Amino acid sequence: MNRITQLFGIKYPIIQGGMIWCSGWKLASSVSNAGGLGLIGSGSMYPDVLRDHILKCKQNTDKPFGVNIPLLYPDLDHHIQTIIDLDVKIVFTSAGSPMKYTSILKENGIIVVHVTSNLKFAKKSEEAGVDAVVSEGFEAGGHNGKEEITTLCLIPNVSENLNIPVIAAGGIASGKAMLAAMILGADGVQIGSRFVTSEESSAHINFKDEVVKAKEGDTMLSLKQLTAVRLLNNKFYQQVIEAESRGDSVEELSKLLGRSRAKRGMFEGDIDEGELEIGQVSSMIADIKPVKEIIEEIMNEFESQKSKIGNIQF
Amino acid sequence: MNRITQLFGIKYPIIQGGMIWCSGWKLASSVSNAGGLGLIGSGSMYPDVLRDHILKCKQNTDKPFGVNIPLLYPDLDHHIQTIIDLDVKIVFTSAGSPMKYTSILKENGIIVVHVTSNLKFAKKSEEAGVDAVVSEGFEAGGHNGKEEITTLCLIPNVSENLNIPVIAAGGIASGKAMLAAMILGADGVQIGSRFVTSEESSAHINFKDEVVKAKEGDTMLSLKQLTAVRLLNNKFYQQVIEAESRGDSVEELSKLLGRSRAKRGMFEGDIDEGELEIGQVSSMIADIKPVKEIIEEIMNEFESQKSKIGNIQF
Repeated sequence: MNRITQLFGIKYPIIQGGMIWCSGWKLASSVSNAGGLGLIGSGSMYPDVLRDHILKCKQNTDKPFGVNIPLLYPDLDHHIQTIIDLDVKIVFTSAGSPMKYTSILKENGIIVVHVTSNLKFAKKSEEAGVDAVVSEGFEAGGHNGKEEITTLCLIPNVSENLNIPVIAAGGIASGKAMLAAMILGADGVQIGSRFVTSEESSAHINFKDEVVKAKEGDTMLSLKQLTAVRLLNNKFYQQVIEAESRGDSVEELSKLLGRSRAKRGMFEGDIDEGELEIGQVSSMIADIKPVKEIIEEIMNEFESQKSKIGNIQF
Repeated sequence: MNRITQLFGIKYPIIQGGMIWCSGWKLASSVSNAGGLGLIGSGSMYPDVLRDHILKCKQNTDKPFGVNIPLLYPDLDHHIQTIIDLDVKIVFTSAGSPMKYTSILKENGIIVVHVTSNLKFAKKSEEAGVDAVVSEGFEAGGHNGKEEITTLCLIPNVSENLNIPVIAAGGIASGKAMLAAMILGADGVQIGSRFVTSEESSAHINFKDEVVKAKEGDTMLSLKQLTAVRLLNNKFYQQVIEAESRGDSVEELSKLLGRSRAKRGMFEGDIDEGELEIGQVSSMIADIKPVKEIIEEIMNEFESQKSKIGNIQF
């Protein structure tokens, strides 16, 4: 047991990131069944779709699972009500202030975790009454902070300044990285990219294949003038770079991004014109496999590295 | 013993980064005397100044020390000759191709290490015959790679693909971070920012004070159109941001940077108009102290974290 396994009632302190277009009931229930904490990514779901995913997740696991809600979601109150109505026990909030919704969720007996990318907002989250924070480094896929603080610099700073448990995210896809994060002060890890390339994720197979093929330097934090987001280098990304280098305005960039780019890329498999959100660690991901094998592999490496530490002698 | 302590004949696998304007004979000899490997940063030295620093370093330590040479140095052959003439045993090369000079140095019985920021050039360095590589992540201060690969993502990738020892750099200023780096596959660490704020570094006290005051988000990788460099946020940095956001050309940016900005900031203490090169980890540095205490603190934390790893149980 540690603070994170205890908080959620799970076997391993591995949380699957709640990612748009990639993490529905199938991925979340598989992660929970394998001993981690699965999260349904509600940011890409209409309210009735979220309801459906929660019900299916409950049918497919009797283990704890949760829902991730970006607090900028347009129909946020509807999502919150669905979660309360269906008696979801765990909610991860992100992309917004935790001040308002933490108390509403807590009053309904829900465990609340907020995702931040710096110490300042981790502290604000603690003040807002969350049960834990996810501290997400610069290397993480998808939306990210402006300060570009890496996991290595972020985790010690947050864990030394907060009393609640800290979950490290960004750059973690292996047992080695998980152990390193815990030495830096994390109580658990949130893993995104590695689960995108699981068999059970709802990412399109074309997107999964691109992630497996990715080499170092193939993801970059971009669209910083809109909202910073880490993307895989593809045709759309090149259009973004060109637009930025000729000094396009925020309005022009918004128009280029348009609507449904993320769905088109990650869910529908248009790897040229779609927006492909993925972490820097994708350069280390070499295959697509079932969630159960991914978690076993991570935990085996974690234990093996742990047992080897005594060998570090000078 | 491990591969790095053995290679250099040192007690701890801690290498002090050879930094312009900050690491002369005093810092290098102090680090070597305290059990690490001190490096004279020759990039900011005229040939006769380098000669003087090497001679003084020899007078002040009987332990191994080395010299860092940026391979873009204008009078490179002169520096190389000085090093050979004065029988320096260890050279770290950076900022350029290791192909030509590695063989010249090796023929003179010198241990050669090359600094890179990605796997591709780490492999090329190994092919060029270097004895070890420094793999430097995005969080490192000063000049840096374009691919923005963080230490957490870089070290496992390099160490799993090279046969020679790997020294991790970027974001490391504590025993925790050192242990994390070694779990990720490093054989040793190179530490820069923490030694800038040592009593023995030749950085101006004004610069040291700014590093101690720095908070998260106060350094950014900038000037990417010229050569990417991580800088502390000051008046000069703000001028760079303004110039970049109005789309200034490379020529205009070069003119803004001008000459001697780094010397002015780091050595002469002009914290407004100077270029202050420092790592992201400066947000975790809280004081200025002697090298010996810095190394003892790091090693104590390293050993203490190592002994606690058995407590990580679920």
